[in-house]
Amino acid sequence: MEERIQQQLDFIVEVDKLKSIFRRTYIIDGSRRENDAEHSWHLALMAIILSEYANHDMDVLRVMKMVVIHDLIEIDAGDTFAYDVKGHEDKLEREIQAAERLFNLLPEDQAASIRALWDEFEERKTQEAKFAVALDRLQPVLLNFFQGGKAWKENGITKSQVLNRNKQTVQGSKAIWEFIQYIIDKAVDKGYLKED
Amino acid sequence: MEERIQQQLDFIVEVDKLKSIFRRTYIIDGSRRENDAEHSWHLALMAIILSEYANHDMDVLRVMKMVVIHDLIEIDAGDTFAYDVKGHEDKLEREIQAAERLFNLLPEDQAASIRALWDEFEERKTQEAKFAVALDRLQPVLLNFFQGGKAWKENGITKSQVLNRNKQTVQGSKAIWEFIQYIIDKAVDKGYLKED
Repeated sequence: MEERIQQQLDFIVEVDKLKSIFRRTYIIDGSRRENDAEHSWHLALMAIILSEYANHDMDVLRVMKMVVIHDLIEIDAGDTFAYDVKGHEDKLEREIQAAERLFNLLPEDQAASIRALWDEFEERKTQEAKFAVALDRLQPVLLNFFQGGKAWKENGITKSQVLNRNKQTVQGSKAIWEFIQYIIDKAVDKGYLKED
Repeated sequence: MEERIQQQLDFIVEVDKLKSIFRRTYIIDGSRRENDAEHSWHLALMAIILSEYANHDMDVLRVMKMVVIHDLIEIDAGDTFAYDVKGHEDKLEREIQAAERLFNLLPEDQAASIRALWDEFEERKTQEAKFAVALDRLQPVLLNFFQGGKAWKENGITKSQVLNRNKQTVQGSKAIWEFIQYIIDKAVDKGYLKED
């Protein structure tokens, strides 16, 4: 078999491990935590349904590619909980090492293009990256809210923490940011989130 | 809140159930079966990496959209095992009913566009649909092979069954069909698949 397709298949097999990287968020039926592959799929679906709410015209294909690959680095670096201050200290370093190993399983041209997509997502400068980040923030808020707030309550999360983490969504979508604020207020009313 | 975004969010919440629809295939570490959300994510990633092997030029965005939505109907209709002859008798009818209910949670224009994508996938006429189907066939072959053949062995699957199910991949990608035949021969050598 040709080396190129062998490298591509090695990568496709390796990233199966994303299905075993679990997040803090529960799936909506509350039965178990969500993993990164499921989360990434949900974002791709949301990109299809919600792209009309982007602040500016954008390339939906690039948004979908970014959300599909954005968490691959957690195969090596693990999931860092959104509200884990200590975990965030060395998060970037761990993730860059992971990107170097994982993406370089691919042929050189594809390693570079996947790395460019991941860098674009992390830098949050383009409209596509800002919108992808907005989806990445909205999705766990939806899951937490419609599940009944278990992950927020388990971790003692407060309203201002969620507002603070989600306010950057406004850069990708004013409508999504408004919607998140609406959900957060309802979550406080229902006792899912603590008032500060 | 506006009715349109409310309908869209109802849909996004409802499809969380795809994470609880389990397939026969195991994830590669063999620890558990794969669910449809993980499978759909894996196909979206494969669309990014393998689109160069399509027989003809195509719109990768439409391929990605198709693979992301192609199994949603299993939320109501369940997963029908590839080699379950009886299950396939009423599969289409169950799936059409599911499509009617699920996609119509969305605003009318989006319900129509998601239905059109699902119909396109099912009809296998466009290059995009043929390629999406080729990915949908290749992915469980890869998982079964690299996991060690547990799902094939559990279900007494033979070489000719797998060849027969996968031969249509040639319509989307000659290279993928060649690769599948190579894997199937190796799977027989290793005892994962029975010779007929």
